[in-house]
Amino acid sequence: MRDLSGGLEWLSLNWATVRQQWDLRQAIEGCARHGIPGIAPWREPLQVLGLAEAARLIRDHGLAVSGLCRAGMFPAADAAGRQAAIDEVRRATDEAAAIEAQCLVVVAGGMPAGSKDLALARQQVRDGLAAILPHARAAGVPLALEPLHPMYAADRCCISTLAQANDLCAELDPEGAGGLGVAIDVYHVFWDPELAREIARAGAASRILAFHVCDWLVPTRHLLLDRGMMGDGVIDLRRIRGLVEAAGYAGLIEVEIFSTDWWRRDPDEVLRIISGRYHTTV
Amino acid sequence: MRDLSGGLEWLSLNWATVRQQWDLRQAIEGCARHGIPGIAPWREPLQVLGLAEAARLIRDHGLAVSGLCRAGMFPAADAAGRQAAIDEVRRATDEAAAIEAQCLVVVAGGMPAGSKDLALARQQVRDGLAAILPHARAAGVPLALEPLHPMYAADRCCISTLAQANDLCAELDPEGAGGLGVAIDVYHVFWDPELAREIARAGAASRILAFHVCDWLVPTRHLLLDRGMMGDGVIDLRRIRGLVEAAGYAGLIEVEIFSTDWWRRDPDEVLRIISGRYHTTV
Repeated sequence: MRDLSGGLEWLSLNWATVRQQWDLRQAIEGCARHGIPGIAPWREPLQVLGLAEAARLIRDHGLAVSGLCRAGMFPAADAAGRQAAIDEVRRATDEAAAIEAQCLVVVAGGMPAGSKDLALARQQVRDGLAAILPHARAAGVPLALEPLHPMYAADRCCISTLAQANDLCAELDPEGAGGLGVAIDVYHVFWDPELAREIARAGAASRILAFHVCDWLVPTRHLLLDRGMMGDGVIDLRRIRGLVEAAGYAGLIEVEIFSTDWWRRDPDEVLRIISGRYHTTV
Repeated sequence: MRDLSGGLEWLSLNWATVRQQWDLRQAIEGCARHGIPGIAPWREPLQVLGLAEAARLIRDHGLAVSGLCRAGMFPAADAAGRQAAIDEVRRATDEAAAIEAQCLVVVAGGMPAGSKDLALARQQVRDGLAAILPHARAAGVPLALEPLHPMYAADRCCISTLAQANDLCAELDPEGAGGLGVAIDVYHVFWDPELAREIARAGAASRILAFHVCDWLVPTRHLLLDRGMMGDGVIDLRRIRGLVEAAGYAGLIEVEIFSTDWWRRDPDEVLRIISGRYHTTV
């Protein structure tokens, strides 16, 4: 395993961690000020700042972009809706290319309103990924399919396990030509009894494109907005990082915390605490 | 599939569905009044009412007991704690026998406070089940291991998938001697891409001991207390019931809804709505 106790060499900040305090410019400047070498923008603040200006700022501050969040949401009630989703992912891919993001984070989407057919939604995700994959390859931006926790299966992401994501990658990219892989976020997968096997499988196929950390609080008071700072919850972060690194991942470690608690804190303090936990806990 | 459009032949009420309105005596009498032939008590109200009196009331009203909720919680920080958990399950088994429950619902437990070791917790669940299984067999009360939704993996139940529960049954009862099986609750498993396969597997081993229904609401506002009435959410109940019945299950269909909303309603109205949804939606 890599030694994180020294510098911040592999740390990246997901903008959403400070989304209530900072716009993207402030987050870029904040990372630079704190010596955090990576950032992961979201599309909305990126569009506000402007692609060219964001690319310039990121470059001028010497930051790497661990990923662009996010696109996907493939399932829709009709063909026009599904095509619109694919078109949106295409635009997101181009945005990711413009800021030299190492991947585009893909969140599959849930069931369309009124549907109870998870299997159909999963099929639509597969079809949508198949449709966009050639463009992603041409743009040089790999798609990082992120399984989300099963508590989001209905309305956000019907890809609930790393096994499902790996299966999709194997189906859509059987030759390992690239352009498609997985994002592994400890929050979504720590519970999975098959986690070690599936991390190894993703790594053997060179498909681990991103690694996200935060923590699972006990109790968790809200399904979306109560993630914990690394070390404040029950996830064995070092074990999972060990699995990911043993599988060959040597990239950035991205901190993504959706939390009404942390959004109320001074953002410079948040970055100081993240940096400390990176050394001691991740 | 069984035709539910006529009577209420296979309906059972889990007491927790009306836990804020009725004690166990009122729930038993309510079921009888509404023509609901099954009930599933919880241990706390059962102890308040008294085992002998509960058994008498249940018998006098001609109710079947689809299960007793619940025992388990095997993981503990030390050997004394683990033994105490096993002893508690033994007492619960005897209570289940006294009211002629068709099974004892076993909720495995999560990680002890301070632990981040899910694998160890899972091992302690296996060891606890192995220790109590002979007693359950002797008492004639099968243990129904209920996988809970992964959002409870940390603090309530480290058995998060039906595959895990099936694996444990196969390991602890390799000969199919009985005394151990699974409880399938749609709320906990509907998201699982392996659900059809694992229901068939449980059925092939004659291990489906209970079938619980409610619904998953979108949005879900609370991790514990926001379950939906059948038909109000996104679970394809008929599909899952079809899988369970195709796997050989012919027992009671138990309605278990933890919901601060439904706990505020008139309990007779709740039972009328449940009966209606049983006909039209389950």
